[in-house]
Amino acid sequence: MIYTITLNPTIDRLLFLEGTLTKGKNNRLRKVTYDIGGKGHHGSNAMNQLGVKNQALGFSGTTNAGKLENILLDKGIDYDFVEVYGKATRESYVILEEGIGGSILITEKGFTVTDYDIELLYEKVEKKVQKEDMVLIAGSTPPGFDLSDLEELLERLKRIGCFIACDLSGEALKKAVEIGVDFIKPNRFEVQELVPSDDNFLDHIKELSEKVDYLIVSLGKDGSICSHAGEVYEVSTPPVELVNDTGAGDCFVGTFLGSLSLNQPLTECLSLASACAADHVQYNDSSTFDINNARELQKVVTVKKIS
Amino acid sequence: MIYTITLNPTIDRLLFLEGTLTKGKNNRLRKVTYDIGGKGHHGSNAMNQLGVKNQALGFSGTTNAGKLENILLDKGIDYDFVEVYGKATRESYVILEEGIGGSILITEKGFTVTDYDIELLYEKVEKKVQKEDMVLIAGSTPPGFDLSDLEELLERLKRIGCFIACDLSGEALKKAVEIGVDFIKPNRFEVQELVPSDDNFLDHIKELSEKVDYLIVSLGKDGSICSHAGEVYEVSTPPVELVNDTGAGDCFVGTFLGSLSLNQPLTECLSLASACAADHVQYNDSSTFDINNARELQKVVTVKKIS
Repeated sequence: MIYTITLNPTIDRLLFLEGTLTKGKNNRLRKVTYDIGGKGHHGSNAMNQLGVKNQALGFSGTTNAGKLENILLDKGIDYDFVEVYGKATRESYVILEEGIGGSILITEKGFTVTDYDIELLYEKVEKKVQKEDMVLIAGSTPPGFDLSDLEELLERLKRIGCFIACDLSGEALKKAVEIGVDFIKPNRFEVQELVPSDDNFLDHIKELSEKVDYLIVSLGKDGSICSHAGEVYEVSTPPVELVNDTGAGDCFVGTFLGSLSLNQPLTECLSLASACAADHVQYNDSSTFDINNARELQKVVTVKKIS
Repeated sequence: MIYTITLNPTIDRLLFLEGTLTKGKNNRLRKVTYDIGGKGHHGSNAMNQLGVKNQALGFSGTTNAGKLENILLDKGIDYDFVEVYGKATRESYVILEEGIGGSILITEKGFTVTDYDIELLYEKVEKKVQKEDMVLIAGSTPPGFDLSDLEELLERLKRIGCFIACDLSGEALKKAVEIGVDFIKPNRFEVQELVPSDDNFLDHIKELSEKVDYLIVSLGKDGSICSHAGEVYEVSTPPVELVNDTGAGDCFVGTFLGSLSLNQPLTECLSLASACAADHVQYNDSSTFDINNARELQKVVTVKKIS
């Protein structure tokens, strides 16, 4: 069983513009749609596509609970949140210009969680997670959830002895590496921050790999680097047309961990994840990809051992 | 009594960014607030500041009625809408960058109204409006509300014999001029479209003034031109620091018509409206201005007869 934990959940509000965004004019929308937004929720959605059983945990606000739940139900995502009374799950605005790839992302801060809410989350996690399970903690932390709270959550998971994956950034990522987790996915710059030295990039990877079992460094359209068990791999990304890149990294993480939980070989996990993320950026929402298309794209993904 | 009619109402969602809007990064928000958004609602708000009794009419959607009503109640705006069941009043996104004046406006289309909804609006208007009243129709028309519907609404108002002000644009503005109304506020380019010829700007104004009793042409920060009773005036705008210009034109229209309904001299109506609009752009929301500050700014506004 995999549990995804989204500490600072969000609902994506996709704004489809007529033309391009221009200051000083009325930018009219063609349509507005909603999609899952939290990184953990995206991970759950990606795992679902692989048929991997999982449940989304974390916080949610009660005042717009129906909106979030409808989106999750629509995607077939199983969830069990700590409901924070009188608060609204934040929204992220994904602005999509007509005829231009990519997106403009604007995110709200999220509601503040209290020590009481955090304690309820610890209890829920400890009641559910077993030693043989995998846990993915993904996304930003909400106001009120400090580094010490993250440390406590990680320590409790370590005591359980499950596989811990963290898709975090900044100080939260540093804390995860310090405490010791099984999977992280920093970008090129974060690697340098995690092991500051004048060494070259590959040396950084190797140094960090001594601390983390599965290390994946995303390089955007240039693919990714993965280190595991003393070996380093370069993973290509298949050529596709970029429409909306929001959530592509989450798709990679979800499908990678999903494949890993099915005991697939590492090279298979990596090439499938790269193909799923590539298929994902061709759609204009934040969560869609087609596993059959991805299997086709996977054929051209190369996974090369470089060290 | 003044009635404002907002055919395509909106709720302004003000997005206060950290820094400036940049594609390819996560643009974080400092805060999110809500404000009235419909042009007629802004007109009502401005009239309220002058102490002029008015009521906001038009359509509203039932699914988010509470949100719109809370904002209107907070501003002390009296309203009586035709409620359209199962539809949501649209939102407009006003993106405010940190340390940069102006705003980026993104607007939803609005829900579709049916012939039944439109008939209910006609009935409500005919039941309320008296000969001695003033009616302001402001903003865009919603999907389902055609030019023939606008024509019907205007014809019914003309039969009542009230003062008709239209803050419309495009084909709707042309229709209003064709049918004959008492007030319009086109911009420089719309004047040219309304009376196409090679004549100079002042000749255009004069030609148009034969069709419309009160004609105000907004020139943005360069002030405005007003024609009435065969005379043309140039109105200056006082120097202020631009923070957010959303709703400034609506503030001008609301305070101008409010003053006019109080039987103030035309030059007083014009200078006060210019001062109120100028005070308005100094605030970061869409509706705030201070009538006392505006009275100070009014002292430096010039109204010069130019023809």
